[in-house]
Amino acid sequence: MDAPYLLFIGNETDALDAKTASGVAYWRPNDCVGQLRSDNKCVDLGVPDMSLADGKKAGAKTLLIGIANEGGFIPDSWIPVFIEALEQGYNLASGLHARLHDIPALKILADEKSLKLYDVRTPQNDIPIGTGIPRSGKRLLTVGTDCAVGKMFTVLALEKEMKQRGLNADFRATGQTGIFIAGKGVPIDAVVSDFIAGAAEYISPAADDDHWDLIEGQGSLYHPSYAGVTLGLVHGSQPDNLILCHRMGQTTIAGHPDYAIPPLEDVIKTYEAAAQLTNKNARVVGISLVTKGAQAEAALAEIQAYEDRYSLPCFDPVRTGVSKMVDYLETFSA
Amino acid sequence: MDAPYLLFIGNETDALDAKTASGVAYWRPNDCVGQLRSDNKCVDLGVPDMSLADGKKAGAKTLLIGIANEGGFIPDSWIPVFIEALEQGYNLASGLHARLHDIPALKILADEKSLKLYDVRTPQNDIPIGTGIPRSGKRLLTVGTDCAVGKMFTVLALEKEMKQRGLNADFRATGQTGIFIAGKGVPIDAVVSDFIAGAAEYISPAADDDHWDLIEGQGSLYHPSYAGVTLGLVHGSQPDNLILCHRMGQTTIAGHPDYAIPPLEDVIKTYEAAAQLTNKNARVVGISLVTKGAQAEAALAEIQAYEDRYSLPCFDPVRTGVSKMVDYLETFSA
Repeated sequence: MDAPYLLFIGNETDALDAKTASGVAYWRPNDCVGQLRSDNKCVDLGVPDMSLADGKKAGAKTLLIGIANEGGFIPDSWIPVFIEALEQGYNLASGLHARLHDIPALKILADEKSLKLYDVRTPQNDIPIGTGIPRSGKRLLTVGTDCAVGKMFTVLALEKEMKQRGLNADFRATGQTGIFIAGKGVPIDAVVSDFIAGAAEYISPAADDDHWDLIEGQGSLYHPSYAGVTLGLVHGSQPDNLILCHRMGQTTIAGHPDYAIPPLEDVIKTYEAAAQLTNKNARVVGISLVTKGAQAEAALAEIQAYEDRYSLPCFDPVRTGVSKMVDYLETFSA
Repeated sequence: MDAPYLLFIGNETDALDAKTASGVAYWRPNDCVGQLRSDNKCVDLGVPDMSLADGKKAGAKTLLIGIANEGGFIPDSWIPVFIEALEQGYNLASGLHARLHDIPALKILADEKSLKLYDVRTPQNDIPIGTGIPRSGKRLLTVGTDCAVGKMFTVLALEKEMKQRGLNADFRATGQTGIFIAGKGVPIDAVVSDFIAGAAEYISPAADDDHWDLIEGQGSLYHPSYAGVTLGLVHGSQPDNLILCHRMGQTTIAGHPDYAIPPLEDVIKTYEAAAQLTNKNARVVGISLVTKGAQAEAALAEIQAYEDRYSLPCFDPVRTGVSKMVDYLETFSA
């Protein structure tokens, strides 16, 4: 994908829905020249505000749609902006279910101007059915009490730390933001449902005994809309190691106030039971806690409380880093 | 779809893989003129063997691909037969993942001759994301220890019996065979994985309090390839009533000898726990047992043993019928 990017925020005011933009801005800062927002009430990524023309002057080659809305649709109100972007010579990149390629006005204009439309949530065609057959290599998968609780961030932080220590580790992207960051991966929530487990096997194939696949989790077994995706990903990944991601203080599924998040001991048991279908050794080895917004003292106390209660490393990849977790993982290394 | 059909068996020798053909032959006998097989070692549906020319003489309008292979592909060896069928004036109908429309030789010839290619495993485009919001009406879902253990047959048999009793009941098809039989439905294993639960909500919408949706289950929570589909279907269906389907004597997942089927009490608990995410009242209310191949005495003894052990109605929809089950369901009616 042609970097650098201007990050399209539109009129989004919910930081969770702008997680694609914030993920790319955080993990690929050198590839991002700025953000394009309707006004200053919208989500702010902490990068310069730019018009399309400003972005071009700053060298941007691609307008990257930074929004991950529920359902993955493209609102009509965005189209005129995208047309103007193409007119100004931008490629367009999207990770939504709805495809840029399926909007004739964009397709025709892009073809005319030899610009590219990237639809990264369109999976490849050669994904096999899952086999359930054990394979070599170490695999770690992040799982969560909900969507948007740090599953991608955690594995990216682990990859960075493990690579710095000279460990043989690779981030495996399963969602739009992860694919934008890694430059490859399979959008697991966009594969045909019969192939979910197969897609997870495909992105984390048999590897050397000392190699770590760090697989980005998706959704939650407790989410009424997406748990099927999560279960297939858990089965196909055959992880030895699960890290449970959770947001400090969250008690219900976001947007679903009638769906309570059970006590974490139940969540841990449920994920271990699910994962043990395809890997009898699967177990939760750590807890990744989003403590954003909490005072430092309260956050650190909560992290300590989780460690005491579950006898597992607990960390916030942003606040505390992941070195403690990697120390623990290193004890499993061959 | 233009009936009657000639049922294409190809060179299939595994009765389970020919379950589409056998399902249509059983539930829509008046729509089937015969079967087209490579030779008499192949699966026999008990309908007349016919060549393409014989089928035409018998009035067949559509060649229906009766095979449901793993992965849903179209072997190259079938293509010449399909071309010949189009030459002779047949429409073609497929429920495989691979689409007839994507094979240029078939597409071009069908267009030329104004014949139809039916790809029933291509879902509609307007399926929403699951909401998890409770809805009115009674819903029953079949679930299984494995694939191919009578989940579709059971709900079709229930629909027939319930309609005969004047109950307000509808079969809801979620797989290719069920869609061929009902003439409508959503191929749940072919929807984009983010939309599994949404698709299940879509096919069993809010209804009158006395209306029964009888939803065809898919896969199994114990299947390493397909459990994600099953879980999403369980969540989206929000069933009050689950019927557990099992094959007498089966101890491992078909084709996966390392995957043991747990004791049914564990299976029941697992499905109830899964279903209760979206419907706290969900419970297993009966056991449907495939006893095909067993002696009558052994089969009936096994059915009785299950009833005694689980204190639930147990039946083989083929051998014993479903009247006992419907008697029990009627006790729940408003």
